[in-house]
Order: sequence, then C-alpha cells, then structure tokens
Amino acid sequence: MSASGGPVAPELVADLAAAARILAARGVVDGFGHVSMRHPGAPDRYLMSRALAPALVVPADIVEYDLNSVPCDPDAPKGFLERFIHGEIYRARPDLNAVVHSHSPSVIPFGLTDTPMQACFHNAAFLARGAPVFNIQDRFGDTDMLVSDGEKGVALADCLGDHDIALMRAHGSVACGPTLQSAVFRAVYTEVNARVQHWTHALANGGPIAALSPEEGRLADQPNQTAGLRAWDLWRREIRKDTGW
Amino acid sequence: MSASGGPVAPELVADLAAAARILAARGVVDGFGHVSMRHPGAPDRYLMSRALAPALVVPADIVEYDLNSVPCDPDAPKGFLERFIHGEIYRARPDLNAVVHSHSPSVIPFGLTDTPMQACFHNAAFLARGAPVFNIQDRFGDTDMLVSDGEKGVALADCLGDHDIALMRAHGSVACGPTLQSAVFRAVYTEVNARVQHWTHALANGGPIAALSPEEGRLADQPNQTAGLRAWDLWRREIRKDTGW
Amino acid sequence: MSASGGPVAPELVADLAAAARILAARGVVDGFGHVSMRHPGAPDRYLMSRALAPALVVPADIVEYDLNSVPCDPDAPKGFLERFIHGEIYRARPDLNAVVHSHSPSVIPFGLTDTPMQACFHNAAFLARGAPVFNIQDRFGDTDMLVSDGEKGVALADCLGDHDIALMRAHGSVACGPTLQSAVFRAVYTEVNARVQHWTHALANGGPIAALSPEEGRLADQPNQTAGLRAWDLWRREIRKDTGW
Amino acid sequence: MSASGGPVAPELVADLAAAARILAARGVVDGFGHVSMRHPGAPDRYLMSRALAPALVVPADIVEYDLNSVPCDPDAPKGFLERFIHGEIYRARPDLNAVVHSHSPSVIPFGLTDTPMQACFHNAAFLARGAPVFNIQDRFGDTDMLVSDGEKGVALADCLGDHDIALMRAHGSVACGPTLQSAVFRAVYTEVNARVQHWTHALANGGPIAALSPEEGRLADQPNQTAGLRAWDLWRREIRKDTGW
Repeated sequence: MSASGGPVAPELVADLAAAARILAARGVVDGFGHVSMRHPGAPDRYLMSRALAPALVVPADIVEYDLNSVPCDPDAPKGFLERFIHGEIYRARPDLNAVVHSHSPSVIPFGLTDTPMQACFHNAAFLARGAPVFNIQDRFGDTDMLVSDGEKGVALADCLGDHDIALMRAHGSVACGPTLQSAVFRAVYTEVNARVQHWTHALANGGPIAALSPEEGRLADQPNQTAGLRAWDLWRREIRKDTGW
Repeated sequence: MSASGGPVAPELVADLAAAARILAARGVVDGFGHVSMRHPGAPDRYLMSRALAPALVVPADIVEYDLNSVPCDPDAPKGFLERFIHGEIYRARPDLNAVVHSHSPSVIPFGLTDTPMQACFHNAAFLARGAPVFNIQDRFGDTDMLVSDGEKGVALADCLGDHDIALMRAHGSVACGPTLQSAVFRAVYTEVNARVQHWTHALANGGPIAALSPEEGRLADQPNQTAGLRAWDLWRREIRKDTGW
Repeated sequence: MSASGGPVAPELVADLAAAARILAARGVVDGFGHVSMRHPGAPDRYLMSRALAPALVVPADIVEYDLNSVPCDPDAPKGFLERFIHGEIYRARPDLNAVVHSHSPSVIPFGLTDTPMQACFHNAAFLARGAPVFNIQDRFGDTDMLVSDGEKGVALADCLGDHDIALMRAHGSVACGPTLQSAVFRAVYTEVNARVQHWTHALANGGPIAALSPEEGRLADQPNQTAGLRAWDLWRREIRKDTGW
Repeated sequence: MSASGGPVAPELVADLAAAARILAARGVVDGFGHVSMRHPGAPDRYLMSRALAPALVVPADIVEYDLNSVPCDPDAPKGFLERFIHGEIYRARPDLNAVVHSHSPSVIPFGLTDTPMQACFHNAAFLARGAPVFNIQDRFGDTDMLVSDGEKGVALADCLGDHDIALMRAHGSVACGPTLQSAVFRAVYTEVNARVQHWTHALANGGPIAALSPEEGRLADQPNQTAGLRAWDLWRREIRKDTGW
C-alpha cells in the first residue's frame, strides 16, 4: 500500500464525480463504466470512484489509487474490478491525465469487425489517428473479458500505444486525454462518431468515406481542446443544477 | 385451485413489482410484457402481477399462481393471457427462478430471420450459448401467436431446453435466470445486445463477427451475476425514488 | 353547412383530445398529424381538433365536421388543411370510427420504395392484410402533397379500400380502426413495426422474413382489440396525470 | 467596427434566443451549433448569441455583428469562431434572413459519401432543390475544418449558391430561410429527413427512392412557410414554459 499523494482541491474531486454523471447522462455509460483522473499533485496516483453506477457517484465516493491500482487508504471501499485499465495507462502514458472506460452500444461493433473506426466529423478529430482494437483473447485465451489485473492492464496499455483511444473486442473502449475535460469530450464524441459512421457506412454502399485526413484530425483536435470546453460547461452545469455541487 | 405456498417477504414482492417498472423504464417492455419469480418458499408456485401495464405495477398487484398458472386465490384479479409461459418454464427448469417475457423491438428481428443472435459483449454473455427460436406455427399452425394455454407453454419450454433465453417468432422473447435480478439483467442486456448486433451485422459486410466464444460466454456470465448487481442497484434505486417503495 | 349531430359525452371528447397527446408522446406525431373519431350518435359527422399541434390539444379544441369536412359551427376555429382525409374515409368506410394521420419517420420509407410493409409481430397484426401506398402524383400530378380537398380525400379512401392502413408516398400514413382506442393502438404499433422491419430487413440479407401470415394476422388482431386496451389504459393515465382530464 | 443597426424589438431577440434552445431540444444542435437572424432594420447587420451552448442562450447573450462578422459593440463578449458562416451568407444572399449551423449526427453522413440527400417527405420539401456539399479541403487543403474567417465563409456561401442548404464535409450543415421560423423549421426537418433517408436507402436495396420531384418540392415548401408555423408555435411555447420568456 502506497502513501497518499496529498489532498486534492474539492472542486476537482467534484468535477471527477460530475464527469461520471455526465457520461451517464450522455449515454456513454450505463450501470457500468468508469472515469478517472491522475492525481494533480502526484503523477503516480490516480482518483476514481468506488465500484458504483456512474449516475450515482458523489464526491465522497472518490478513492485514491497508486499505479498498481491499490487504494492508498486501507479502509477504502471496494473498487472496480477493472481499475487496472486506468493504473496501467497512467503508468505507460505520462502525457495522459484522464481515462474513460465505457461500453457504449454504438462503439462496440467497431471492435467486432474489420471495419476501422474513422473520424467522421471534426468533434471526433482525435480518431483520425486510428483506434486500435484490443483482443484479450490474443494473449490470455478465453477469459471473462475483464481487464481485472495488472498484466491485462499492461496488455491493454500496450495496444493503446501512443493513441488516445483503444477499442476492446466484445467489451467496449477506453478514451483518454490530457485533461479530464478532454477525455470526457472524446468519450462522448466517440459515441456520436460511431453512430455517424454506422449511417455513413450504409450510405457509402462499400465506397469510400470522406473522413478527416490525419492532418485534418491533428488540426481539428486543437479547437476541441479549447472552444470545445463549451460543451463541458454545458454538461457540468446540468449536473450542478441537479446535485448542487 | 392450489393452496398458497405461504407468505412472501414484502421486500421481495416489492422487488418483483419494481422489476416490472425497471423493464419499462429500460425500454424492454411497453404496455405489454411481464416478469415473474418463483415463490421463494414453494418451488411449485410463482408470483406475477395481475394483467396490467408493467409501468403501473405496485406490490398489491402481485398474484400467486401454481405451475398450471391457476391463481391460488379464487378472488385473484385477472391475470395475463400468456402466464403459461412462466408456469411451464418453472415446471421444466427447476434451476430457473425468474422469467421475463417481452417484445423489445430490437430483439424481434432475430426471431424473423436466419441470422442467429450472438453475444456481442460481455454483459450479454449468457447469449453465447445460443438463443433458440420458438415458432408457434410449427406445432399449432395459424394462431393468435399467444402462448395462452399450458400446451403452448410446454412447447415453448421444450424449445427453451437448457438455454436461458428463447426468441419467439413474430412475437418477442423470454429471458430467464436463477434470480430475479439476473433475469432482469439478462432481459435488459439482450435488448442492448440486439441493437449492438444490428450495427455490427451491417459493419461486417457479411463477414464474421468476433462475438464471445462459448467459453468466454460462460466465464463472463459469472461477474454479471455478482458485480453485475451494480446495475440492479441503480435501477432499483430509480424506482424507489419514484414510488417510495 | 350541416347541423350538429348533437352533444357528445365529455369523457369521449376528452378521450379524443387525449388521443392526440398520446400520439405525440409516443412519437407517432410531432407538430403535425391529427386524430379524429366519428360522432358516436351521428355517423355522418366526425370530431377532430382545430388546427393545432397534437401535444397541445385540449377538449375545447374539438370541432365537429360533416363528411364534406365543413364544420357544423360557422364560428368554428380554423381546421386542418387535410381534414378531408378523415371525412372521405368515414364516408367510404362505415365500419371505421377513428382515423389517425401521421408522418412517423420510421413509416415514411415504406411509401418510398417497393419493399412492402409486413406484420413483424402480433401487436401489429392488422398489417398482415397489407398496406397499400397512395401516390398522389398518379391522379393529381405535381402537388403540394397535401390531401387538401374532397377529391383528393376520395382518391386516398379509394386506395385504402378495405384495408385499415394506407401509406402515403413522401408524406406519411393513415391508420384506422373501429374504435378510437384501436386506431391509436394501430398507429402506435405501425410505428413500432416499421422500426422492427427496418432492422429485420437488414438482418435478412435479402432473404425471407417470417412475418405473420394473413390468417395469423387476422387471429392476432383480435386480442389486440381486447387485451390490447391495457396499453390504452397506460397511455390515457399518463395524459390524465399530466393534464388533470 | 461598424455602428449598430439600431435597437431590435425585445420579442424578436427573445425569439432568436428561443430558436437556439429549440434546436437543442430537437436534437439538431448539442453543445455546439448556432442560429442567427438578419437585423430586421439593417440588412447589413445580423444578430447571434455569444459563444455559448445553444441550450443556455438567453436574450442578453445576443450580439450584433456587421457582415464582416465584427461585433458592433467593442465590449461584446467573445463570439463563435465560425460566425463568418453567417456574415458571408447574409452578404451573398439578400433573400435569406436566418441561418442555422449544426452538426446533427444523422445529417453528417450525406457530406461524407456520394449519395445525395433527397426530399423524402413534404416537410423537408426545400431539399428537393438539392443540397450541395462544401468540402473545405478543395480550396484550403488540410485545415481544422472550421469556417473561421471571411474567406472560408465566402467559399461556403459560393457553394450554397441559390440553394437554401449546404452540407459541410466531415462537419455539419447550414440551413437557411427567409425568416427565423423557416430556417429553424428547415434545420429540424433536414435532421428528420436524414433519418428517414437512412432507413429508405436500406429498404430500397439500391433501387430508386420515390422522393419529391423538384416541382413537388417547390409546391410543398409553400404550406411549410404558413401552416408549418404550427410547429414553431409548439416549440416556442415549450421554451417559454421553461424560461418564462
């Protein structure tokens, strides 16, 4: 068990709790799924709610973990079985500070077929770099599909590589970002992009899709990180209106 | 008419009434559909609401039936025409303790074509064992499609065999489980899985779908029965918030 | 101008106003669309709201028309441009007592292609007799697509023939029934059936769809008229809860 | 910086603010997108909210711009990056008095493939004249996809030509009209039409779609401008009920 990385500003903890509720309100997560952020003052710690449906999370549910995904508090409540997703991505990718794991129904199909996810519009620009598919079967054979230990977390982080998203075969996806806001934004627009691409795929009759080029993706991802905060402001306000925090 | 199996704890009756409302809230049932559970103290009795839209059920609407689907109380209010689905499944399958019958629009297509339903993600793992299709036409010719007597209920239970789900041609489906919570979970994720598979089918362009293998399905079904209760907790709380019970 | 067919019981007028709101709540109509019923005491009169979005209708908005779709009250508020749909169907079909006209997005495609609508499940059983397509272009050339006079109403009623539904090319549909409740039921389940058939069409890969046979449709339509009222009870209650009437 | 075109009636400003909320409520815009109207007394000025999620706009957020999209008030709050869409369309098209820019998920696919959008039903009649696709790549190479200056706005207005809608590749669309109400109506029914066409495309199996002819489109667009206001009345009332203005 590791020592705490120190206290975190209550408004950041509230933002993290709100992020869980935002993802539920936008249909990215249902009773399952989780969002975490790296400890703002201790890069080898991260924060995530206890095992709880995202729509129910309050700030007091936030638990601090080390990168082995062991809680810093011996009395911490039970955590998510798949918290290793988060710990191993934070370990492998110092540039990422937030991770969303979800099972959005529209996204799952891209992990089940050979059709790659493409960036169908500018708000999903970060997808233009590609979305690798993690097949847990490749390294671990038949499993319960869960990334339930550090070894599986490492394998997922390997698959992620230097991308900011990985699809998980017959399971879901992870979307990451340099900030909590960007990770939530990307998770939301991955879900929207998936719906757009399903329609586009049918309309294309097997022909090409005029998706964002890699360079368009790189350029369009920039305003998403700045002007894109307008969406976070809306979503955050909706949660505050509901919860008071 | 059979004697009652004895009183049932009020919280279990409330859970059953809540299950009907959960299924309505999740879009699994609309004005039609029903959920039952086996009497916890009398395996040859089961509990189900009187004929009523699931969204309106309150604990006082719960009626006790014997396995011939005859109410134990001669003054019981009118029951569902298709209650024989439940009675005959409980008779044929001692391991099952809850049954959901629904007409979810996304699920019906799998009873109308030759494309089999597959387990597209871990929450729908129980589908990896397959989903047989019951065609009432095969044994009964042209009917009103309803499983409205014991003979038809037996035929449906035969089709179900040792599966936990059966699709019903041009009608709907039944999803079953060892507990009320698992049956509700399975009915909900059958509906979600159906939507996932529709998208996946299109994306696959006729090629294979990397669905759960049977062994993955077996393994993944286990956490659904334990950690999966997190979803029930969320859904149950939403009903309690609305109804007070 | 014709004399009134006499007063109508307030609860029936309220049911008609509620029907408009039910159709809006179920996504069958949006800002447009209308529902009418034949005058219960005067078969050559019918009742329908003034020109108003269905979600806003209150009992005081109900206007009485003769079968030429002229209001019986010279001071009646402005009516729907397409009220002739209703008048001419009532004239041509004495067995029908309620008509719903809507533009449900899922239904429109069946008026634009050669793929016929089929009855995909028992609640939409009445579709098993087929759904003719009215193409206003055939008799009237280029128009504004509206059934805005008696002649066009007659043409639509001709197309309807002895069916209880007609699709209208590039426009919408009419669903009819012997009672207000059955017409609303059919309009709702036509919309649901359309969604089911879209999914089924894709899943069938050009192969057959095991839809209801005509005889199954005839048989299954019967419980829809009786046990099916359970859905009306739910929907009506939701409106009453909202409006007080 | 240009002088103001003079005060605008408060009810018109409130209608513009309400239009933003209407578009959000109908799913046409999410955290992004914007609606503007030409200054009713000064054709070389237009009104649009400051950079803000449409669902949050209040009348005090409305800012006046000249056709170079420079605010008339030096102390105006920050505007949308893409306000040049609006300024250049107003400059190029004196007949248009309102513009909606949105990223509706159902519409984006028509900017990514060769399948043209067609007018699938009368409420979307204005689409019968065609919907040109603006590909920012053609004139500007790799960009962040945003119409973020006057030159790009001119290019978009060129593409629009004498149509009332333009699709924007991998981005969204603009829908325009002679009045605020018509532009909102067209944006809403473009979104609905897109969903209808996706279903129709699949149902047609590559065959023709019996969409509106150009002349039917021209004729059907007329009642949309008059009787079609019924939809605006409904939508406007819903906003007023919520906001008090």
